[in-house]
Amino acid sequence: MRYNSAMKLEEKIGKILKEKKLTLALAESCTGGLVSKKITDISGSSDYFLGSVIAYSNKIKVALLKVSPKLLKKNGAVSPETAKAMACGAKRLLKTDVAVSITGIAGPAGGSKEKPVGLAYIAFLSGKRSKVEKVFFKGTRRRNREKFAIEVLRVIIENI
Amino acid sequence: MRYNSAMKLEEKIGKILKEKKLTLALAESCTGGLVSKKITDISGSSDYFLGSVIAYSNKIKVALLKVSPKLLKKNGAVSPETAKAMACGAKRLLKTDVAVSITGIAGPAGGSKEKPVGLAYIAFLSGKRSKVEKVFFKGTRRRNREKFAIEVLRVIIENI
Repeated sequence: MRYNSAMKLEEKIGKILKEKKLTLALAESCTGGLVSKKITDISGSSDYFLGSVIAYSNKIKVALLKVSPKLLKKNGAVSPETAKAMACGAKRLLKTDVAVSITGIAGPAGGSKEKPVGLAYIAFLSGKRSKVEKVFFKGTRRRNREKFAIEVLRVIIENI
Repeated sequence: MRYNSAMKLEEKIGKILKEKKLTLALAESCTGGLVSKKITDISGSSDYFLGSVIAYSNKIKVALLKVSPKLLKKNGAVSPETAKAMACGAKRLLKTDVAVSITGIAGPAGGSKEKPVGLAYIAFLSGKRSKVEKVFFKGTRRRNREKFAIEVLRVIIENI
């Protein structure tokens, strides 16, 4: 299938998911709902998007997404391991074909030398594929979140 | 406490919740994450915002928020009863002091004579207060969602 290059990423995702009859769930931390908002900007997104867990606090990552407290303590909330565990938890909880997660530091607070503001991990999980990507941006909170969300959409498109 | 009138609603909410040491959870349907996004636009929102369930499909309303299938069938997904059950489910699941939900029809599809596009119900639930409000807008999908989200913020401010 060819996609109009003027088509928004969230529209492309909708077309592909519908075509492949796949359902999607999200687990968002640093983007706080922005990715889900973009996905549901598209009318008819209820055909493939079931829902999300916005796990802004670690408590919710553990309680809802079943991220192990040990794993969280060892690797930190912003790590490939936590991203993967979040996607895994969302896929199991929402019973979808595809689940994607993001965990990162939007800033301006919360950064460290090892894990600076602008760092995020995005995990993709489907029956066929499991992948984690690292992204890094140097922007304001607002710009970082916007860029994080766009990266999540890109990861979805590249892997579904 | 006095609030600067130039202060955004989401900033005011942050100030009040911090001051009162209250935690917040959301359950969003038609806004699809937009309210959570606005709440987390504020740096430091992790002090009071634990997370959300974006229950875009009825399956998720039932499975995660424990909205009864009977109640859903009887009243429909867009009803004061479902809004209340969603807030109740979010409060129990995320263990917060305050939970707020919204369910509605953003459009352009999904409307009917009884439940037209632009209709939404917002439920507020805290230890002290339980309230459901009906809102109605005549706009595009995008404008309806933006207005729905602002109404949710207003309901939070008026009731916390």
